[in-house]
Amino acid sequence: MTRIKMIIEYDGSGYHGFQRQNNAHTVQAELEEQIKRITGEQVNVSGAGRTDAGVHARGQVIAFSTDSRIPAARWKFALNRYLPEDIRVLESQEVNESFHPAFDAVRKHYQYHIYRQRQGAAFVRKYALLNTENLDLEAMQQACQEIIGYHNFHAFCSSGATSKTFDRTVYRCTLQESGPELILDIEANGFLYNMVRIIMGTLLEVGRGKLSGEDLSHIIQTGQRALAGPTALPHGLYLVEVEYMT
Amino acid sequence: MTRIKMIIEYDGSGYHGFQRQNNAHTVQAELEEQIKRITGEQVNVSGAGRTDAGVHARGQVIAFSTDSRIPAARWKFALNRYLPEDIRVLESQEVNESFHPAFDAVRKHYQYHIYRQRQGAAFVRKYALLNTENLDLEAMQQACQEIIGYHNFHAFCSSGATSKTFDRTVYRCTLQESGPELILDIEANGFLYNMVRIIMGTLLEVGRGKLSGEDLSHIIQTGQRALAGPTALPHGLYLVEVEYMT
Repeated sequence: MTRIKMIIEYDGSGYHGFQRQNNAHTVQAELEEQIKRITGEQVNVSGAGRTDAGVHARGQVIAFSTDSRIPAARWKFALNRYLPEDIRVLESQEVNESFHPAFDAVRKHYQYHIYRQRQGAAFVRKYALLNTENLDLEAMQQACQEIIGYHNFHAFCSSGATSKTFDRTVYRCTLQESGPELILDIEANGFLYNMVRIIMGTLLEVGRGKLSGEDLSHIIQTGQRALAGPTALPHGLYLVEVEYMT
Repeated sequence: MTRIKMIIEYDGSGYHGFQRQNNAHTVQAELEEQIKRITGEQVNVSGAGRTDAGVHARGQVIAFSTDSRIPAARWKFALNRYLPEDIRVLESQEVNESFHPAFDAVRKHYQYHIYRQRQGAAFVRKYALLNTENLDLEAMQQACQEIIGYHNFHAFCSSGATSKTFDRTVYRCTLQESGPELILDIEANGFLYNMVRIIMGTLLEVGRGKLSGEDLSHIIQTGQRALAGPTALPHGLYLVEVEYMT
């Protein structure tokens, strides 16, 4: 058995998320189907992050085990031949047979994109959140500071999560303007279910003047989901990079 | 009767081009349907350019006549409420009742986008031509000079065109790198059927070293379509702007 690790990107618009589900078109199911076409094997593809429907990836990490003799570096080309154009393999390599892309991850990087003008909206509608409100960017940027550090993020987690602990360490949380876009970069040792989207929804409330940085600190302390902002729509979210111990 | 002029943008991916056709989803049909929903009238929407299936617009100009009392500036908001998100009205105004967006145009600006790297291809696949070949950009840029000016562009026109004359004046033809993209900007007093896509396909042959700038000059002189390059795929093409006498 060979264990193959891949870095992939995908446009999440056409998928019901990463994880396999009955009767739904998912990225995992698409990968497993095309691997089966190549090798005849029914493999199980694991991913680093369970991206939701509409969420995109620029650097999702996946792994699977195979008896195939295809050299690891050739897997990239083999799979790209069969995959639809909205999923692309960027890198493939052989890894230790115990490697698991989710459990072994030590740091993940997500981005959330907000598009701030009406011109061009027809093109970004599936790739960024359209928002042309007047937002207090400075207040949002200051509030980002409250997110950074070791906290219990229970207030920023959707119900239905199966996490044992809600403690996570956020290493980076920045909000920057880039042309017509506002980009949230957030890096942590791990993320709870919908955590980035709820942080984004809460930062938007700060931008509207409905919440302050102090409120944010209080919300984290109380751990009450109801006090945080709404979950921002999925289509602005990107899984950008996953890091492992080398 | 009021004559309304609009500047619109659309993602051409989901349409069989601008012009109404039987049993095909087109931009014109979508506009006429939503105007009918608002006013009850079956209007005829004219466009400045008949973009093909998959071709995009950032500044298509359309016009129609209506008995509705909706103020011209409100039309933008009224129509945007009903149109799908991949068509957006950017501006609406009242114009002289004789205004025709195609016949009155004095200058049009098209862009062709080529994406030059594999990373990110999953996201641009419908919005640029993916090409990672080694291209001689300098040769392509020099060849652009041959296009500029008053010429008979018969060699750069697909058969089936109904034009009376093949003479056009190209005011601008530039090819520039912009990050991972190569962008062709071309402005003229008018364009023949598939002219920009054939020019792009021919410039790519120059980039590959299969044609020279001199060949280009010769192709223009002979007027033979067979000597020019292939018609580049539609999804890299954008109608950017249409100008009128003020």
